[in-house]
Amino acid sequence: MTENAQTGINVVLGDNQYGKAENHVVRVTRENGPRHEIEDLTVSSQLHGDFVAAHLDGDNAHVVATDTQKNTVFAFARDGIGSPEEFLIRLGEHFVADFDWVTGGRWAARVAKWERINDHDHCFVRGGSGAETRTAVVKIVDRTQTHVITGLKDLAVLKTTESGFVGYPKDRYTTLAETTDRIMATNVTAAWLYNTTDIDFNETYESVKAILLDTFTNHYSRALQETQYLMGKAVLEAHPEIDEIKFSMPNLHHFVYDLDRFGLDNPNLVFHAAHSPYGLIEGTIRREGLGNTDAIWKGQAAFV
Amino acid sequence: MTENAQTGINVVLGDNQYGKAENHVVRVTRENGPRHEIEDLTVSSQLHGDFVAAHLDGDNAHVVATDTQKNTVFAFARDGIGSPEEFLIRLGEHFVADFDWVTGGRWAARVAKWERINDHDHCFVRGGSGAETRTAVVKIVDRTQTHVITGLKDLAVLKTTESGFVGYPKDRYTTLAETTDRIMATNVTAAWLYNTTDIDFNETYESVKAILLDTFTNHYSRALQETQYLMGKAVLEAHPEIDEIKFSMPNLHHFVYDLDRFGLDNPNLVFHAAHSPYGLIEGTIRREGLGNTDAIWKGQAAFV
Amino acid sequence: MTENAQTGINVVLGDNQYGKAENHVVRVTRENGPRHEIEDLTVSSQLHGDFVAAHLDGDNAHVVATDTQKNTVFAFARDGIGSPEEFLIRLGEHFVADFDWVTGGRWAARVAKWERINDHDHCFVRGGSGAETRTAVVKIVDRTQTHVITGLKDLAVLKTTESGFVGYPKDRYTTLAETTDRIMATNVTAAWLYNTTDIDFNETYESVKAILLDTFTNHYSRALQETQYLMGKAVLEAHPEIDEIKFSMPNLHHFVYDLDRFGLDNPNLVFHAAHSPYGLIEGTIRREGLGNTDAIWKGQAAFV
Amino acid sequence: MTENAQTGINVVLGDNQYGKAENHVVRVTRENGPRHEIEDLTVSSQLHGDFVAAHLDGDNAHVVATDTQKNTVFAFARDGIGSPEEFLIRLGEHFVADFDWVTGGRWAARVAKWERINDHDHCFVRGGSGAETRTAVVKIVDRTQTHVITGLKDLAVLKTTESGFVGYPKDRYTTLAETTDRIMATNVTAAWLYNTTDIDFNETYESVKAILLDTFTNHYSRALQETQYLMGKAVLEAHPEIDEIKFSMPNLHHFVYDLDRFGLDNPNLVFHAAHSPYGLIEGTIRREGLGNTDAIWKGQAAFV
Repeated sequence: MTENAQTGINVVLGDNQYGKAENHVVRVTRENGPRHEIEDLTVSSQLHGDFVAAHLDGDNAHVVATDTQKNTVFAFARDGIGSPEEFLIRLGEHFVADFDWVTGGRWAARVAKWERINDHDHCFVRGGSGAETRTAVVKIVDRTQTHVITGLKDLAVLKTTESGFVGYPKDRYTTLAETTDRIMATNVTAAWLYNTTDIDFNETYESVKAILLDTFTNHYSRALQETQYLMGKAVLEAHPEIDEIKFSMPNLHHFVYDLDRFGLDNPNLVFHAAHSPYGLIEGTIRREGLGNTDAIWKGQAAFV
Repeated sequence: MTENAQTGINVVLGDNQYGKAENHVVRVTRENGPRHEIEDLTVSSQLHGDFVAAHLDGDNAHVVATDTQKNTVFAFARDGIGSPEEFLIRLGEHFVADFDWVTGGRWAARVAKWERINDHDHCFVRGGSGAETRTAVVKIVDRTQTHVITGLKDLAVLKTTESGFVGYPKDRYTTLAETTDRIMATNVTAAWLYNTTDIDFNETYESVKAILLDTFTNHYSRALQETQYLMGKAVLEAHPEIDEIKFSMPNLHHFVYDLDRFGLDNPNLVFHAAHSPYGLIEGTIRREGLGNTDAIWKGQAAFV
Repeated sequence: MTENAQTGINVVLGDNQYGKAENHVVRVTRENGPRHEIEDLTVSSQLHGDFVAAHLDGDNAHVVATDTQKNTVFAFARDGIGSPEEFLIRLGEHFVADFDWVTGGRWAARVAKWERINDHDHCFVRGGSGAETRTAVVKIVDRTQTHVITGLKDLAVLKTTESGFVGYPKDRYTTLAETTDRIMATNVTAAWLYNTTDIDFNETYESVKAILLDTFTNHYSRALQETQYLMGKAVLEAHPEIDEIKFSMPNLHHFVYDLDRFGLDNPNLVFHAAHSPYGLIEGTIRREGLGNTDAIWKGQAAFV
Repeated sequence: MTENAQTGINVVLGDNQYGKAENHVVRVTRENGPRHEIEDLTVSSQLHGDFVAAHLDGDNAHVVATDTQKNTVFAFARDGIGSPEEFLIRLGEHFVADFDWVTGGRWAARVAKWERINDHDHCFVRGGSGAETRTAVVKIVDRTQTHVITGLKDLAVLKTTESGFVGYPKDRYTTLAETTDRIMATNVTAAWLYNTTDIDFNETYESVKAILLDTFTNHYSRALQETQYLMGKAVLEAHPEIDEIKFSMPNLHHFVYDLDRFGLDNPNLVFHAAHSPYGLIEGTIRREGLGNTDAIWKGQAAFV
């Protein structure tokens, strides 16, 4: 807190965090012979704790350098990654254990997906079914509570039919025509909160992704809201270790192009995929009775 | 809430919002004669309220179409923008007033900056001092509480000296050398919460920006944390209508290039401006005694 | 040509083209029953010909509106796409045939890749093995010559070993250490020129891509130059219908992180994947005796 | 050239270049006391010459390492930048002089614009009138010919009136309505070829930019083609040291929003600024009698 004698105003430091963002670490596993594995993570490390002296007095005695955080990320990769979530937990526990004034933090990773070229031992190509990026966040609060949020970003999916939108309210500004057959397209961004750290994170990720894809296909969609809810519900029903899932899903409009003007019909064959504006549907599906989790999600961009 | 008979699991819908994102509206003022004005906003509208039937039952009776929200944005621009904040307030109040089940929402805008070419009446060039984007968010809660957050994104500033970093803790992973003379560069992203809607938002924006820039210049910086705090403190001291300001500021490292290897000295003349990783310093400066504002900031990306 | 009486300077209009860029057309094939197909192209159309009056005199009598070009793209999609190349050829031939003063043009497309979700009839997910974007360019010159260039952009590949770099010249500014074991990573951007239009473009694309991937794996690489040459050579040997292939391949550096400072060894296990600067290797592999093709490649960005 | 015994196919190496891209060098001038200057360039260096052995045989004896090129960029900055063009010329002449087999190359830079904060000695803010990026390319051919191309990228300009589009041909696919009053908006990307290296490049850049802006304002535009031509003509008339200028200018459509549907008029007040598709007008304005310059422009992306 600082007092301004002239103005009599007291201002204080509120929530804060700092660290090193975008550490791109690639870990090759060659310990098991010529068949290499590759893990590709872009890691951000941010510390929470008592850093008030740095902000108010320029005293850096508590400021674990962001350069040190970077070095630690790469040093810890020496022992292997395992899963992004486990790696971030190890990182977080280190900072909390080694520095008294660090009470927690937020460690995040984006994961790039590589697959073998023709089952080759050491040659890989980026990609795979689904163009999404896997994300992971570990948050440590009060030194002892470890929260893990896994997610995916921009899993682009599209159905060419079995989607409609009717029955919405009409006011002075409503011009949209109802339809029972349209393209529905979205880039699914989702994140789910685990209630345990004692699971196989890699396997669970693949399972959740498969459920999201499968649910997208298995119903006539009356609104993106309904599809989103069904996707979340299916994940929670299949995975008791997940308490809550949040979605941010654009409605990527595909407009039937008006070919009538050229003497052509267009029975849902030719679409203009508009860039913007787009609908944006964000929602949370959670277990009944689950308490308030806002503090855990805080700082997680792009979610309601 | 849905109950799954087979599994006995109950899942419920949690926080949600939806709307139309990235409505790019350009309003030309030509009502006052040949000297035109231009306002250039990219607006997102998101509604909060009772939309549970859409998610659970595919019943859209409450779903004000995102297309309708888009139309409303453009229709409301007919009456002029005024300031981005006032425009968003008008939008928000409309949705809350006209639809019983809409209890609030989040309306946001990015503002592009145009200035006259040679003081021309109707020709403009993008840019101006500072490459930042102005941002505005209006949040309405429980129909009656209107919160306004104004901000700026990527105001890039750099000082070639009068910055250092010393006195930080050293551990096994610390290799950074102390320095009392370095380049400090950052892209300031900031957002500030008003305690009133009864101000000149455009004028206040310019004043806050000027204070941020001026404060950046007026001290020897012992850490980006200190500079950020001073910037926030100066804003709060000058503007009693602002209760809280949040920052997200990368530390964009400029490394002295090692020219010694080529027989050249380099007394802070030649720098490599690294792209990534970068430091990331995020903090809040607020009035003492201000209550918890987390609910207001919720959904605001990229802030602690 | 315009003459400036005051200055006596004559300036003339040189090469020019114009059209509509970024027409995002999605064509769904539903004519064959419930098993839909999807083709997703972002098309740009640019006309060449006699447009001098528009430039010099503001006379638009020859200016086929870019809006008309857009409409034509979508209208032509009504008859199906077939392959991106065939679709662009049909477009180009139309403009040349219908407008006397249009002597040619350049039609280009980026192709988004969708694959079925669980072999579903009408649900798709973006992605697939390889994160590349397929590209196609059709150029018509003098009304009668039709050139087809197919390509791909950002096919990201990486080998964890079997790559080195030694034997390069050393001067005052050389500090790089030789290595016989490194990661080699690149995003392959390539484009190849056909000598015929009478082939199955979709099938050939898949074959070329497979050859590029396979060649990347099948040798110890002594430089990215060598790998690039081998890739191009293999394509030309397998495909007599291709006369020339051009590459733009960044050398995406993966630096062995110095863990020695922390008391750890690092036998090519932990790498820092640097964002920039990066090496950039661009080259052409072509049939011996092929004439000058510069005019065909002109306007094709990012190639030597 | 390599011969494939099996297939009898001969393939040869064609045009090629290689080097290091995206070297971000910041040069601070502090030699003249406390009032610092800053120059901020992102430099790419690419060599032309005899590199056939690297491609065909993996023999790197001629391959000046891209890492060496990077070091050279930073080492040369020690002596000051001067202007981006002069800096690139110095770089290019070095490589050609020091390595027998290097016969030329292409050196390019993007320049970031910083201005003083409140006329401060060492504090700067990014931006200024015009949001464009300055670009520079130096090309050396056959060791002795040095070509300089300066340019700018994304100078966004807009006029709210004094623009129209009428008199274009109508065919089956034409639906666009004629208009004599519309918004015209574009991001000017331009590059101009000098016929000398003996000028003040910084001053000339500012002059050309001022002419482009001024010309944009001084006429009723009957098509973006006309405006582009007038801009180029004005540059060539004012600058005898410039032989040719090329433009790539999107027509960024601002559509009058149909408010009639809501009972509102819209006399060119409210516009939807569409993201895509967009018109794209590319042209060349050059001195009469100037010879073919295609070889000089080759490899310059995004120009006809």
